[in-house]
Amino acid sequence: MRSIVLLSGGLDSATVLAQVSGQGDECFALTVDYGQRHAAEIDAARYISSSYRVIEHRIVRVDYGQFGGSALTDKKLNVPTGEESGIPITYVPARNTVMLSIALGWAEVVAAKKIYIGVNAVDYSGYPDCRPAFIEAFNDLACVATKLGVEGSAITVEAPLIKYKKADIIKLGAKLGVNYALTVSCYQADSQGRACANCDACRLRRNGFAAAGLADPTEYLVE
Amino acid sequence: MRSIVLLSGGLDSATVLAQVSGQGDECFALTVDYGQRHAAEIDAARYISSSYRVIEHRIVRVDYGQFGGSALTDKKLNVPTGEESGIPITYVPARNTVMLSIALGWAEVVAAKKIYIGVNAVDYSGYPDCRPAFIEAFNDLACVATKLGVEGSAITVEAPLIKYKKADIIKLGAKLGVNYALTVSCYQADSQGRACANCDACRLRRNGFAAAGLADPTEYLVE
Repeated sequence: MRSIVLLSGGLDSATVLAQVSGQGDECFALTVDYGQRHAAEIDAARYISSSYRVIEHRIVRVDYGQFGGSALTDKKLNVPTGEESGIPITYVPARNTVMLSIALGWAEVVAAKKIYIGVNAVDYSGYPDCRPAFIEAFNDLACVATKLGVEGSAITVEAPLIKYKKADIIKLGAKLGVNYALTVSCYQADSQGRACANCDACRLRRNGFAAAGLADPTEYLVE
Repeated sequence: MRSIVLLSGGLDSATVLAQVSGQGDECFALTVDYGQRHAAEIDAARYISSSYRVIEHRIVRVDYGQFGGSALTDKKLNVPTGEESGIPITYVPARNTVMLSIALGWAEVVAAKKIYIGVNAVDYSGYPDCRPAFIEAFNDLACVATKLGVEGSAITVEAPLIKYKKADIIKLGAKLGVNYALTVSCYQADSQGRACANCDACRLRRNGFAAAGLADPTEYLVE
């Protein structure tokens, strides 16, 4: 069975790759370079994919950061460090829709039946495109959007971590042998992947390791 | 009212831009360079957008052609010249899904409420992502995928030409003053935009002008 695995370089998608690879799928890893602030995330995706038996790892550049509108793609906007209410400024408009669309195209070309994405709707930043309703709507779209779907053999998106707490994702990954030192979660990591410790992604990660009772291998720039 | 208009450089999207611009919308034109065979289409989009009062014209490059799988992005595959049954080899996997996703992101950033796309499901090549069912499914997705949608103010896709015959699109465009000499429909136009006359897109275009009783300004390489 062939599967596309979206691989951001973060903790969640690394866990998903370990899981899908572990179940014996032929994995095609896909990283979308959408103009995120730092290249460390893309480098992390490269290291992670090379630790697994993936058939191919593709990095697709989408010149999408030019639109701005998010603290992750627009350097004029600061990444917030406190907790916020509502959908935060780190939300990248339609990012997961774009990434899944590209994955859908590649899935058709290589005849993969599944697309795996590491979104999570429990310990997360509140982004609309991480929720079960989004995944369901994308699956409905995939049925009518593609040649394979029209021919009766739809490609479906799987989000195996969507209902996991961050601590449970980390425990699962640890059991699967994921090397979390390779992963980068921070929204504003430096070029070596060192984390700020204070943004929403760092906060979720630190709390997750603490709740899992496991040592966090992340190199933080401050304590 | 702000609107995104997808502008491929072809006949249909030029007509849509004329229509949306004519109704007084503030137009943001979007061209997606997905690695199509020829640059003539992108050049055409530039010429067309500059003939209308658009607020901005963005060309977003998606390094998508690397996947191949279509005669439009893979130079090893020939563009067929006869009529085919089923979904043809010129189908680019998930192309319209990718383009609408990028448009959705930009729409959120500039606060546009509509995305216009010139797809057509009458005189068309049979692509799955040109049909009403696809547009409806994308609209359902847009409601849950975006911050604006979650906040109750969805961005919707409009496909005003979806039920038009090619001849009626051309008549409409002629009435709106569209300069069809600027547009490129051919799947394998040369670098000057000259058309092969024989591919599916050329056939639909030639028949459309003939049925509309209007002169086709296209420069064809053969008669």
